[in-house]
Amino acid sequence: MMLKTPNEIDIVRAKSSKITEVDFENLSFGNIFTDHMLVCDFKNGKWEKPIIKPYEPFLIDPSAKVFHYGQAIFEGMKAYKDNQDDVWLFRPDENFHRFNKSASRMAMPEVPEDIFIGGLKTIVDLERDWVKKGLGNTLYLRPFMIAIGSGVIAQPSTQYRFMIILSPARSYYQGEVKVIIAEHYSRAANGGIGAAKAAGNYSAQFYPQKLAQEKGFQQIIWTDDATHTKLEEAGTMNVFFRINDTIITAPVSERILDGVTRKSLIALAKREGINIEERDVLVNEIVKAAKDGSLKEIFGAGTAAVVSPIVGFQYQEHYYELPKLENSLAMHLKEEITKIQYKLADDTFGWTVKI
Amino acid sequence: MMLKTPNEIDIVRAKSSKITEVDFENLSFGNIFTDHMLVCDFKNGKWEKPIIKPYEPFLIDPSAKVFHYGQAIFEGMKAYKDNQDDVWLFRPDENFHRFNKSASRMAMPEVPEDIFIGGLKTIVDLERDWVKKGLGNTLYLRPFMIAIGSGVIAQPSTQYRFMIILSPARSYYQGEVKVIIAEHYSRAANGGIGAAKAAGNYSAQFYPQKLAQEKGFQQIIWTDDATHTKLEEAGTMNVFFRINDTIITAPVSERILDGVTRKSLIALAKREGINIEERDVLVNEIVKAAKDGSLKEIFGAGTAAVVSPIVGFQYQEHYYELPKLENSLAMHLKEEITKIQYKLADDTFGWTVKI
Ligand SMILES: Cc1ncc(COP(=O)(O)O)c(C=O)c1O
Ligand SMILES: Cc1ncc(COP(=O)(O)O)c(C=O)c1O
Repeated sequence: MMLKTPNEIDIVRAKSSKITEVDFENLSFGNIFTDHMLVCDFKNGKWEKPIIKPYEPFLIDPSAKVFHYGQAIFEGMKAYKDNQDDVWLFRPDENFHRFNKSASRMAMPEVPEDIFIGGLKTIVDLERDWVKKGLGNTLYLRPFMIAIGSGVIAQPSTQYRFMIILSPARSYYQGEVKVIIAEHYSRAANGGIGAAKAAGNYSAQFYPQKLAQEKGFQQIIWTDDATHTKLEEAGTMNVFFRINDTIITAPVSERILDGVTRKSLIALAKREGINIEERDVLVNEIVKAAKDGSLKEIFGAGTAAVVSPIVGFQYQEHYYELPKLENSLAMHLKEEITKIQYKLADDTFGWTVKI
Repeated sequence: MMLKTPNEIDIVRAKSSKITEVDFENLSFGNIFTDHMLVCDFKNGKWEKPIIKPYEPFLIDPSAKVFHYGQAIFEGMKAYKDNQDDVWLFRPDENFHRFNKSASRMAMPEVPEDIFIGGLKTIVDLERDWVKKGLGNTLYLRPFMIAIGSGVIAQPSTQYRFMIILSPARSYYQGEVKVIIAEHYSRAANGGIGAAKAAGNYSAQFYPQKLAQEKGFQQIIWTDDATHTKLEEAGTMNVFFRINDTIITAPVSERILDGVTRKSLIALAKREGINIEERDVLVNEIVKAAKDGSLKEIFGAGTAAVVSPIVGFQYQEHYYELPKLENSLAMHLKEEITKIQYKLADDTFGWTVKI
C-alpha cells in the first residue's frame, strides 16, 4: 500500500507489526526497532524523495565510503507520550541544526528541514503505538546519514543516505557510576571533529572505555588532549560538577558536543536562580574540592540517560568518593526536565513539539 | 563452482570476468574492482571460514555499528607484476601487523595470519590477470574490517566482517602539488587514534581538505593539534623534508601512522649513506630553511602515490616555493623502492613476497 503524505513522503506500510512480540517492560537500549524506517538518498547533487518503508537490511557496495573513511553522522533524540496519549518531541530544532553542523564538518550535504523534521514527525506519527505512556518510557529516534558512494579513494562521497530508525527505550537503573579521569587517552583534538556527532568519535572511545571498565569504572571523564588538565565530557555525555551550591560545566568548544540536555539543564538552573557557570573546569580544582568536601556532585547529561549521577572518581591512582546527598541538584534538574518532556509541567520555554 | 584451497578458503568463481571491459590505460584510482572479493565474518567470538566470491553489494542492517560509531579499519597495499609474469606483494607482514594494531585500538578482534595473508595470497593469485606488467601498473589491495553487529548503543560490536577487495591502479602524474600547513584544523589527538588506519580519521580531513583546495592547495601538511608547531603528515602520507643533504621526518607516534613506504625509504636512504633523521620537524625550522635556501625538497610517502614531490608550501599567508632540483633525492628514493617492488633490483632486504 503506497500512501502520499502532505509533505511528499511515500509510505509503504509493513504487512504486519512486530509490536506484539516486544516486551516493553524489559528493553535493553537500542536493540529493538519499530516496523518502519525512513530512507532518503542524495544523488546527483540533490535529495530524492523520502520513503518510509518496512525496517529491513539494505544492499550496499563493499567500497562504500562509509566503510573506508567513516563519513557518517547521527543524532539521538526521543519521543514522549503524555497522559492524554499525545506524542511529543523535545527541541527537535536543536538536533536538526546540530545534525547539519555535523554534516558540514564532515563534508556531507545538509539535510533540508522538510526531510529531517517533516520525516521525523511523519514516522513518529506512524509508529505512535510504540511510544508507551509512563515516566521513563520513550521512543528513541536515530536520524543518521552515511556516505554510500563507492570508491576507495579518500575523498568525500557524492552519494549519501539519510535514514531514521526508531527504538523503544525504557529508563533503567544503571547501577552506581564510578568514573576515571583520562590521563592518557582522549576523544577529540583541537581542530578535530569532537563537536560533531560523527561516527568515528565513538568507536575511538571503545578501547579506552574497555580499559576503564576492566579497572572497575563505568565511564571515562575526558580531558583536553593537550594537557589533560581540563574536564570536558563524561563518556558520551556532557559533564557537570557541583561545588558547594555552584554548578560548573565546560563551555562548548571544538572538542565538546553542544548537548541539548546540557543547554536545557543550564536554562532550567538559571530560571531557578541556581548559580551555574560555563567555564573551564580544572582537574586540580575538582580534586581540591573533593579533598576539602566542597565537591558535592558530579553528573553526566545526555538524551539517553537524561542525568546520570556519578558516585566517585579516580585520578592518579586515587579514588575520591562523593557524598550521598539528600538534596541532589542533579536529581532535581532531572525531575524538572522530565516533567517538561512528559507535559507534566508548563513548558514555558516552548521546547516541546506535538506530533 | 565451489573449490577448496589448501588453506581452507572456499571459492565461488564469477560466471564471467569484467576484465575485458576495463580500460587499463585510463584508470582513475579506486573506482574499478576485480571480479572477486574475500569475505570472512567474526561471530560468537570466532572467525568463520573465509569465502572468495563474486564482487557484489551485500545486505546490512541499518543499525550496524559501523554506520553509527565508525568501528572500521583498513589497509592499503599493492601487488606488482615483474617481467617474468610473476606477481609480488611488498612487505605484506607490515600491513598485517599494522592492521591488527589498528584492530586493537578500535576494540575489534585481530584477524589471524592465515585469513589476512593467506586470504590476500589466494585472492591475488585468482585475480593475477588484473595485475598488469609495466612500471606504475599495480593492483591496489584493500583489506578492511567493519562492525556489522546491530544496535544503536555506543559499545563495541560483537560481529565483524573482514573483506578484501582489489582495484587495478596506474600511477599518474598528479600535477604540481602545493601544500598548506595546518594552523587550525588537525587530524589526530594525543591519546587518539591517529596511529590507527581507522575509517574516522579520513572523513575528518575532508572538510579542511576542501578548504585547502578552494585556496589552491592540493594537500594539507598536518601539524600537532596542541601547538601547530610540528610537521607531522601530508594529507594521507608521511612527510619528509630535505635540508641541504639531510632528510628529516617526524618520528612515528600516537598521532602519526607508521607508514610502510616511510620505513622503507628510511631503510633505503640509510643503506646508501644518506643522512636521515627521525625527529620532530618544526614549522619554524622549515620556514627558516626555505628563506635561507637550505630547504631543498619536501615529499610525501605512501602506498598509493609512492613518493609525491611537493613544489611549495603556504604558511601564515605566505607561499614558499621550493627549488627545482636536478638531483632530487625524492625521485631517487622513489626509483629505488620501485625497482625493488617490480623486481628490477636485488631485494637485499627480503621485502618482496611471491604469490
Ligand atoms: C559526545 C557527546 N556528548 C554529549 C552528548 C549529550 O548530548 P544531548 O544532550 O544532545 O543528547 C552526546 C549525545 O548524546 C554525545 O554524543
Ligand atoms: C594517514 C596516513 N599516513 C601515512 C600513510 C602511508 O602509509 P603506507 O606507506 O603504509 O601506505 C597512510 C597510508 O597510505 C595514511 O593513511
